[in-house]
Amino acid sequence: MADAGGSKRLWLEEDIESDLRWSYTVKSILHTGKSEFQDVELVDTGPFGKVLLLDGKLQSAERDEFVYHECLVHPALLAHPCPKTVFIAGGGEGSTAREVLRHKTVEKCVMVDIDGVVVTFCKKHLDVNKEAFEDPRLELIIGDARSGLEGYDGKFDVIVGDLADPVWGNPCYQLYTQAYYEMCKSKLNPGGVLVTQSGPAGVLSCTEVYTVIHNTLKQVFPKVVPAAHHVPSFADTWGWQIAFCDEATGAELGEAEIDARIAARVEGELAHYDGRCHARSSR
Amino acid sequence: MADAGGSKRLWLEEDIESDLRWSYTVKSILHTGKSEFQDVELVDTGPFGKVLLLDGKLQSAERDEFVYHECLVHPALLAHPCPKTVFIAGGGEGSTAREVLRHKTVEKCVMVDIDGVVVTFCKKHLDVNKEAFEDPRLELIIGDARSGLEGYDGKFDVIVGDLADPVWGNPCYQLYTQAYYEMCKSKLNPGGVLVTQSGPAGVLSCTEVYTVIHNTLKQVFPKVVPAAHHVPSFADTWGWQIAFCDEATGAELGEAEIDARIAARVEGELAHYDGRCHARSSR
Amino acid sequence: MADAGGSKRLWLEEDIESDLRWSYTVKSILHTGKSEFQDVELVDTGPFGKVLLLDGKLQSAERDEFVYHECLVHPALLAHPCPKTVFIAGGGEGSTAREVLRHKTVEKCVMVDIDGVVVTFCKKHLDVNKEAFEDPRLELIIGDARSGLEGYDGKFDVIVGDLADPVWGNPCYQLYTQAYYEMCKSKLNPGGVLVTQSGPAGVLSCTEVYTVIHNTLKQVFPKVVPAAHHVPSFADTWGWQIAFCDEATGAELGEAEIDARIAARVEGELAHYDGRCHARSSR
Amino acid sequence: MADAGGSKRLWLEEDIESDLRWSYTVKSILHTGKSEFQDVELVDTGPFGKVLLLDGKLQSAERDEFVYHECLVHPALLAHPCPKTVFIAGGGEGSTAREVLRHKTVEKCVMVDIDGVVVTFCKKHLDVNKEAFEDPRLELIIGDARSGLEGYDGKFDVIVGDLADPVWGNPCYQLYTQAYYEMCKSKLNPGGVLVTQSGPAGVLSCTEVYTVIHNTLKQVFPKVVPAAHHVPSFADTWGWQIAFCDEATGAELGEAEIDARIAARVEGELAHYDGRCHARSSR
Ligand SMILES: NCCCCNCCCNCCCN
Ligand SMILES: NCCCCNCCCNCCCN
Ligand SMILES: NCCCCNCCCNCCCN
Ligand SMILES: NCCCCNCCCNCCCN
Repeated sequence: MADAGGSKRLWLEEDIESDLRWSYTVKSILHTGKSEFQDVELVDTGPFGKVLLLDGKLQSAERDEFVYHECLVHPALLAHPCPKTVFIAGGGEGSTAREVLRHKTVEKCVMVDIDGVVVTFCKKHLDVNKEAFEDPRLELIIGDARSGLEGYDGKFDVIVGDLADPVWGNPCYQLYTQAYYEMCKSKLNPGGVLVTQSGPAGVLSCTEVYTVIHNTLKQVFPKVVPAAHHVPSFADTWGWQIAFCDEATGAELGEAEIDARIAARVEGELAHYDGRCHARSSR
Repeated sequence: MADAGGSKRLWLEEDIESDLRWSYTVKSILHTGKSEFQDVELVDTGPFGKVLLLDGKLQSAERDEFVYHECLVHPALLAHPCPKTVFIAGGGEGSTAREVLRHKTVEKCVMVDIDGVVVTFCKKHLDVNKEAFEDPRLELIIGDARSGLEGYDGKFDVIVGDLADPVWGNPCYQLYTQAYYEMCKSKLNPGGVLVTQSGPAGVLSCTEVYTVIHNTLKQVFPKVVPAAHHVPSFADTWGWQIAFCDEATGAELGEAEIDARIAARVEGELAHYDGRCHARSSR
Repeated sequence: MADAGGSKRLWLEEDIESDLRWSYTVKSILHTGKSEFQDVELVDTGPFGKVLLLDGKLQSAERDEFVYHECLVHPALLAHPCPKTVFIAGGGEGSTAREVLRHKTVEKCVMVDIDGVVVTFCKKHLDVNKEAFEDPRLELIIGDARSGLEGYDGKFDVIVGDLADPVWGNPCYQLYTQAYYEMCKSKLNPGGVLVTQSGPAGVLSCTEVYTVIHNTLKQVFPKVVPAAHHVPSFADTWGWQIAFCDEATGAELGEAEIDARIAARVEGELAHYDGRCHARSSR
Repeated sequence: MADAGGSKRLWLEEDIESDLRWSYTVKSILHTGKSEFQDVELVDTGPFGKVLLLDGKLQSAERDEFVYHECLVHPALLAHPCPKTVFIAGGGEGSTAREVLRHKTVEKCVMVDIDGVVVTFCKKHLDVNKEAFEDPRLELIIGDARSGLEGYDGKFDVIVGDLADPVWGNPCYQLYTQAYYEMCKSKLNPGGVLVTQSGPAGVLSCTEVYTVIHNTLKQVFPKVVPAAHHVPSFADTWGWQIAFCDEATGAELGEAEIDARIAARVEGELAHYDGRCHARSSR
């Protein structure tokens, strides 16, 4: 009895909005469970390979997670002249850390995620991040990202926000406020860079949180550069904001310079991000 | 991470008709595969417990399979004065054999199912039928039911048809024809009884195959009694036909007589079928 | 551009339970709106013809509403020796009144439904009930059924409850309580009969409200007879309870007597209900 | 009874792939029908406003059709120094013609679509294209685009392909072949430009037809520039190819030059396309 592979009867339904649904076929259910903080599901799907869902929202798909994670991490780290210390707020899945640790300049990467169950789970199941989780440069803390950063003894060159979207009442909401960004800024070294995922950025969805996050960051940082890229499994274009402590650090790099910095600083081949992609993603 | 149990995101969709769909939540996928003959799926569902699907059609659900299997087996065996030998065409799942073997009068039950993969699979996974599969009175043959019956050395008191619905082009179609029923009759002992599942029998669906099977049987047997009962997981009322070689055997039994025969002849408690149910199921 | 008729892209989804969904294709949307009390939709569907939905629950389908309405009305009216006055609680759609008014003995039928919008709407759109709405024997009152009955000057031979299912917090809940049934009894003439729809009565669903309503009625009436029949568009077997003020009135009638009373008292042909159906529907 | 507006029960299901489904709520069905060539549906939806579907594939949505049509038309026309004559293959909906006719330089626009029913239908229902359909510069021909172009007496400055995606066996397939593009080239004036929609261009879907069309065009034209932009209602990034008879015409224009040409040549405000968008859409 070989694997059916192609059943069109088992579906995973994700509500993108209350009036818009994204459904993909399911090949097998690798895990469904609940942590203290959220529903956790790992499902092997027809169109996207293995996908991780938190509270029913797809966070990462085997087939295209490289788009989201490369676009989150590399523009910010490459914009910095020499990032040695990186803080990740959230990122429990490990893919963000994986991309950060490809940068040869990075000496320490501190990641604080609130959900130990998700971290343990991803460590075990996501082969692609195994190496990152074992990298001695990674310091992994289970706890609240805000207090983890505030109480951390030392400052960082880059802070990466890889968090669920801000939703009223949801604890992540606190990690998208002006007060939080001010605290972040105080924990950045001179010339420091902050990047945060900033929700859907499609032509119809960008007003939900993307532009709001941009404007909040502008209250705190002198220069904030938006970026966006379509992520198929998210069923939308996704957005990021890169905020600079110094306008100088944020000077726009040409395609050739991006490609040169990648070649010089990043271990291995990137699957997606390069100078061309940089130009297209910039808003 | 306890079992979520209640995710409303994973669904199994079953097409009842091309314009009518029955969808139930999925807790886990126990198996999806393909045999030489059909797609085979065993899925743990929210509303119906574990369900077995063949070619995407629900065949049996943990929560209510007793309705279908009790209504298929007991009326026919109880109508017979003393059923000793029973032939099952199809029935690979094992539940029909289980109900047959509860009859203390039964000395031999021959079951012929074409799909060895399904049989092996159900033997392994359906605990509720384990005992039946190991009963020494059961003779299990993997092969075509028609030639299995025709070539069998000996006759039977009762023949039970537990087959997929007749659909043009599908091999089961051959097991609902007048020629097949004539052969069956020649393999029945005097006073013998044939029962066959006969498809959906709801007020809107009964003209699909239910009445056709009734009429086909009437060409061959002097008395044919239709019965029907709503099976929730089938999303419809389901039908059976009981055909009698002698009109005398088919004399309608009163509620009390049904209850008395159950008490005298059947091992253990029935979950559903009794004199009251008999009266309601008769058409 | 002829009517497509067969698009398999437009669907109406009805949640039968939170883990069980019934979906049928849509040919056209005749109306969607909201009254003061509920969402009202009239939709032409592939499998069931035109269907009326209140708060997203199918109430009545062109193809099979006769099952529900005949089984609600005729057993109760035929059990009574000579029903002249009938009260309908709910029933705004008009089909219940239609069946009541087919009884030649009926001189007056008072119907009290809370939702004038639904009544006006059904009067206009449901051709099959036009005649009933114009029958001079019908007195139609828009208001609360309980106070409508309590305040009515006069008593009734039969009271029919054609209400949405009892759900905590929903106003209909009041119309399934012991106190309500006691009031009803006080408004029945000697030998009077009360019948009420009593929710899903399938082998898996009957414990939700069906058996509860039965037990509540038993606190008030000396004899309560349950009945049930599969209604395809409801995706379940449906239930009714007939309660009798006198045990004598409730004496079980044979099939022949049912058929004889139908012939003598009911105008036109019934599509479904007869002596045979009566036997099958009784629990 | 006000419009419900927010029912979450009526859905339109679009199969993006066989294992990926896009479902949106339906407010009303304005039309469903069949022409000689295809199923035609116009439906008012929750997330996208009124949408036009051909053979069940969304072609154009009120809320975001400007993205597709502006990106199809303006880059090609603006790249040309002074487009006076434009040929549209397909485009029956009228939106492509509308964007073409905004160019003040355009003196004649010939549009050939095979489906007169769709054209008549869109003329009547799509208010936003009314003016374009009445523009005296538009010559509308119902017929096969290939023979319409081949037999046309005269050449064009720009040819626009606004056709359904190439699918084996589907007649549109012929309009994506090398032979067809060679014929097109022979009907272009010196310095002429051809642009064609070229199917899904997402990171996972671009190998389906997008890169194939690019390569086919490269066999015929000295310079072919790919472009792509996420269109929310299409549930993917969409692609276009601009092919140039002369490499010189295809010289990349800077953002400022794009903006200047828009200001000088296009009537009214564009909703989406500008120099910034141009940079992002280029691949
Ligand atoms: N369609 C839903 C898309 C949701 C995308 N969310 C972005 C993923 C951010 N990763 C969050 C990691 C949380 N520990
Ligand atoms: N809704 C689909 C219902 C299908 C019910 N089919 C009846 C089950 C008969 N059992 C067949 C066993 C085949 N080996
Ligand atoms: N699947 C949902 C079935 C719901 C059936 N409800 C029974 C209909 C009772 N008619 C109620 C009329 C209210 N005015
Ligand atoms: N998800 C489906 C997207 C399909 C998009 N098709 C592109 C529209 C092209 N317009 C074709 C007009 C045909 N006369």
